[in-house]
Amino acid sequence: MSIANLRLGIDIGEVGRDMYRFISEVFPICRSITGNGIRKTLNIIKNHIPLTVSEIPTGTQVFDWIVPKEWNIKEAYIKNSKHETIIDFRENNLHILSYSVPVKKKVSLRELKDHLFTLPEYPEWIPYRTSYYKENWGFCVSHNQFTNLMEDDYEVMIDSSLEDGYLTYGEYFIEGEKADEILISCHICHPSLCNDNLSGIALVVFLAKCLRRQPLKYSYRFLFIPGTIGAITWLCLNEPNVSKIKHGLVAACLGDSGEFTYKKSRQGNAEIDRAVMNALRNSENNYKIVDFTPFGYDERQYCSPGFNLPVGCLMRTPHGQYPQYHTSADNLNFVQSEHLGESFSLYLSILSILENNRKYLNQNPKCEPQLGKRGLYQAIGGQKHEKSRELAILWALNLSDGGNTLLDISDRSGLKFDLIKDVTDILDKQGLLKLCEK
Amino acid sequence: MSIANLRLGIDIGEVGRDMYRFISEVFPICRSITGNGIRKTLNIIKNHIPLTVSEIPTGTQVFDWIVPKEWNIKEAYIKNSKHETIIDFRENNLHILSYSVPVKKKVSLRELKDHLFTLPEYPEWIPYRTSYYKENWGFCVSHNQFTNLMEDDYEVMIDSSLEDGYLTYGEYFIEGEKADEILISCHICHPSLCNDNLSGIALVVFLAKCLRRQPLKYSYRFLFIPGTIGAITWLCLNEPNVSKIKHGLVAACLGDSGEFTYKKSRQGNAEIDRAVMNALRNSENNYKIVDFTPFGYDERQYCSPGFNLPVGCLMRTPHGQYPQYHTSADNLNFVQSEHLGESFSLYLSILSILENNRKYLNQNPKCEPQLGKRGLYQAIGGQKHEKSRELAILWALNLSDGGNTLLDISDRSGLKFDLIKDVTDILDKQGLLKLCEK
Amino acid sequence: MSIANLRLGIDIGEVGRDMYRFISEVFPICRSITGNGIRKTLNIIKNHIPLTVSEIPTGTQVFDWIVPKEWNIKEAYIKNSKHETIIDFRENNLHILSYSVPVKKKVSLRELKDHLFTLPEYPEWIPYRTSYYKENWGFCVSHNQFTNLMEDDYEVMIDSSLEDGYLTYGEYFIEGEKADEILISCHICHPSLCNDNLSGIALVVFLAKCLRRQPLKYSYRFLFIPGTIGAITWLCLNEPNVSKIKHGLVAACLGDSGEFTYKKSRQGNAEIDRAVMNALRNSENNYKIVDFTPFGYDERQYCSPGFNLPVGCLMRTPHGQYPQYHTSADNLNFVQSEHLGESFSLYLSILSILENNRKYLNQNPKCEPQLGKRGLYQAIGGQKHEKSRELAILWALNLSDGGNTLLDISDRSGLKFDLIKDVTDILDKQGLLKLCEK
Repeated sequence: MSIANLRLGIDIGEVGRDMYRFISEVFPICRSITGNGIRKTLNIIKNHIPLTVSEIPTGTQVFDWIVPKEWNIKEAYIKNSKHETIIDFRENNLHILSYSVPVKKKVSLRELKDHLFTLPEYPEWIPYRTSYYKENWGFCVSHNQFTNLMEDDYEVMIDSSLEDGYLTYGEYFIEGEKADEILISCHICHPSLCNDNLSGIALVVFLAKCLRRQPLKYSYRFLFIPGTIGAITWLCLNEPNVSKIKHGLVAACLGDSGEFTYKKSRQGNAEIDRAVMNALRNSENNYKIVDFTPFGYDERQYCSPGFNLPVGCLMRTPHGQYPQYHTSADNLNFVQSEHLGESFSLYLSILSILENNRKYLNQNPKCEPQLGKRGLYQAIGGQKHEKSRELAILWALNLSDGGNTLLDISDRSGLKFDLIKDVTDILDKQGLLKLCEK
Repeated sequence: MSIANLRLGIDIGEVGRDMYRFISEVFPICRSITGNGIRKTLNIIKNHIPLTVSEIPTGTQVFDWIVPKEWNIKEAYIKNSKHETIIDFRENNLHILSYSVPVKKKVSLRELKDHLFTLPEYPEWIPYRTSYYKENWGFCVSHNQFTNLMEDDYEVMIDSSLEDGYLTYGEYFIEGEKADEILISCHICHPSLCNDNLSGIALVVFLAKCLRRQPLKYSYRFLFIPGTIGAITWLCLNEPNVSKIKHGLVAACLGDSGEFTYKKSRQGNAEIDRAVMNALRNSENNYKIVDFTPFGYDERQYCSPGFNLPVGCLMRTPHGQYPQYHTSADNLNFVQSEHLGESFSLYLSILSILENNRKYLNQNPKCEPQLGKRGLYQAIGGQKHEKSRELAILWALNLSDGGNTLLDISDRSGLKFDLIKDVTDILDKQGLLKLCEK
Repeated sequence: MSIANLRLGIDIGEVGRDMYRFISEVFPICRSITGNGIRKTLNIIKNHIPLTVSEIPTGTQVFDWIVPKEWNIKEAYIKNSKHETIIDFRENNLHILSYSVPVKKKVSLRELKDHLFTLPEYPEWIPYRTSYYKENWGFCVSHNQFTNLMEDDYEVMIDSSLEDGYLTYGEYFIEGEKADEILISCHICHPSLCNDNLSGIALVVFLAKCLRRQPLKYSYRFLFIPGTIGAITWLCLNEPNVSKIKHGLVAACLGDSGEFTYKKSRQGNAEIDRAVMNALRNSENNYKIVDFTPFGYDERQYCSPGFNLPVGCLMRTPHGQYPQYHTSADNLNFVQSEHLGESFSLYLSILSILENNRKYLNQNPKCEPQLGKRGLYQAIGGQKHEKSRELAILWALNLSDGGNTLLDISDRSGLKFDLIKDVTDILDKQGLLKLCEK
């Protein structure tokens, strides 16, 4: 079965705008690695795709880790001695140190400052900070707010709960022709931060939504999980089936205006790595390829040595390399529908390559077949340049020796994968190529 | 047996002038992929080397192809209504679309234009066009001639024949010490075009003429064949012996002033590829190395996946990369004896490498032997620079571990192949190296 | 056993000054490939390390060579007809062509000139020349001295002896935990030349002196041998044990101000090659890496094809690439204690890498272990940059799959070897890594 180019008939501009609308809808929710923020977000995703939601109890051992207590928060503020609210969680959920324990007390300026986090380099921005595994409380404030604080008695109030509960994640599976899976994973644990990673979530949602309407060779698994602990939990609970994952991508930071960055899998030359590089080379976007490093997003876990899955991470500007990263400036102005659409289109191109990558065997391997009599070659000879379709035919015939995939042929010829695929379809129908069984 | 440097005692300037004279002699003949033009050309070649000529009947199946009808032409012209001849095949045989069927009729300007081929970018030049496998008739004219044509009734006359006959090719075999063969192939199907490919034909003729006077390790097979169909025919008829071909070169475009271009074999790192690159590196010419592509000359067939022979293509400026390519401007002014001679010299250098490439085993592999007592090393020590002959000796001894050929030693040391060969001859005589049997 | 960083607690500046003092002490001695100069030098070395001195009789067959006669010299001069001494060996022992046979006669200017060696490019410097294997006599003089010579009758006197005797070399062995050896070799045959090679001798002496005070994994063999014939002699007499040598360095030209140059072993990618490159990359020095060539110092013999030992040569400016090379300008002003100290420090860094290079197996290979609960990870998350110690931990865990050594991890991560070693020690103690047995 030949899979059509997955981008056919898709209005990329429209998808980009839909992604932006989705981001706007989930932006206000306060998410963390557990709690109701994640549940609300998954419920909104369910409006787009039929998600399976798992709830894993606090205390569950997952490899070296234990599922933590569930954290929820209703309200948080700092008031001065005149009862004026000077910091309010309702204004921006970044104000709270994620996983802050409940507190309600009067504190001096000095004690308060021990619990405030700021970003002196960008004095108007609120930083995003967490304390998942060490009980603490705190507020994140702009450095301007911080420096304006005067000697006073402050009232701090955090109405949060940190109790036995669940770690929640969402999963969506599309069954394809084969049991072999492609994994697309994103982290859903960040509060109001658009690029990292509502852009990644939006991409995975709309990718799933698009793919489920199409015939597919591979099965697809889409994961919406809290970063680190979510990936570890999922890998632990699904260990027996992990070997079905033949290719994978972690989706993050996909809405900014930067060029694309592909971080290779730990294997470094896996088919996913080559497919992404091929798609990037044949796109009109600028891009950078970087080697695997054991820090970043959940590729850290997928590529841990005990799994070593062929999973890369495809971003625009990587984490930590734009000033807005993990600050209140990573907001709805920072991401744009146009960039989201481009990212979506690139992911579809990559999946099209994986879906259509295969090997053929030239049925007429000794000398070239006579293409002219089959209508595949110009009638008038002697001209300076052969057309790219003819070149593609010659490359496909020459390299279809049972050792080269269409991706190999595209890479070696420098011709686009889609063109190679198109001509091999024709050569297959003409009996000049025969598909190699895997 | 050690083969002498094949260039020894050759006056390259003289050979270049002989090649030019040969080109001048065969230039006027109208050649195509079949017919008397080829026969006449092969007869002239027979004045230089004892050629075997094969005649393969029309209709013979050769792999996916069928040997076409034989085409011959006596006369062709276009006359205007005043009976003035405005286009005459006798003036330039490029005027005829090769394989034009016979025609004699009056046509309107409009109908005539459907059968005219021009080159608007170079309005004074006549293009070269063919229609081997689709019956058609036509004239190739300069764009100036084309634009000067007025409304009129024109008489077109083509006195050609397209009938059952033969495909003709020439072959010359020199038996060397070994049955292993080196193939040198050129296409002989082009009419009055000097660089593509009378230059290639001249090179093969004079190479064969030079080699037959010398003792040789390899056997040599020189092919003078029509492009594509000739190579396919030869490969089909000689399939059982093709495996004897250990190295090969396709010779084309060797008389222009451009730098050398070597197109590697499909294998990419065959001994022929390395020998050509070594010879180029140690020549004083500029050059370019390009990877194999499945278009170009008959390396397309030799490197089809069912054969995958180690055959590259050594040109000066490649096909399609000079404006004169396949036009009336590829004439006797475009090629020069000096460039032909250089090309000839380079081919000899390459064959010298292949003839002399071998492995030795150091007979004194533990520490260096004492070269001084054998007169191979300077008596006064302490000087700044050793001489290149001494360096070559040290390299040859150090790398002659049974794993490295002389070509490997030349490549790794950066010293010329001839120097490495010379010192290994001496070291062999001194008993310090021993030839490895293949 | 984990070996401490060998540089710990070493005052590099002080060692550099000690090395310079040592060079000053041995500088005046007239050394050659045999004779009392070597014995005196080895006796001075014995003040620092307990050397074993071997005396190999003249005439001993060592592979293709024969141990030559022993050469000694007491006095040498040239006098003019006024009995004025114009050249005196006592002023500079470079004045004598090394291995000059005894002579005492009157000669004309013309005959004298046949026995004079000069350096026209540097008219004030005396060159260093030898004639070990061809009996001859001669004087090396500055070109100014040479051009000032007038027609006269000269008296030449060389009170030397060339007689059956011994070839002398020194060896020092430190037994480590393992029988596997690291070889450090220097040539001791040069007269008053500081950089080539009193600097190398000083380096080996002080390296040995430093290492003998420390616990070591490897055994170490330090060789003080005459160049070429000494290495050949040692290899011949020690052939059965040569296979114990797992890594080696030839030390030469280590006191000048030039950048470091590492000449790789013939193997090219041996552990010693990678260790040196790693140490250089992580040092603050400029450096150059060059491929093996079969000329230079005694790596020529160690890397002859019959041994092919993993021995490289680590220099500052290589032989022949500084004008002072093999001239009287390679004197006590040309080398400096600062550069000697830097070279010493670099050698220690390299040996630290070899001593500590090992493989671990991640005991928790599926997903990352929870580093925070072990105090190995920051408590506050969301910050832009992880610290280099945390990165090193993540790299060490990710790559400790049984296939990567610490050197591999350092190279791939770009982090310093010492940092990788430090964190793996910690991870080992925490039970997260387990040492792989070799």
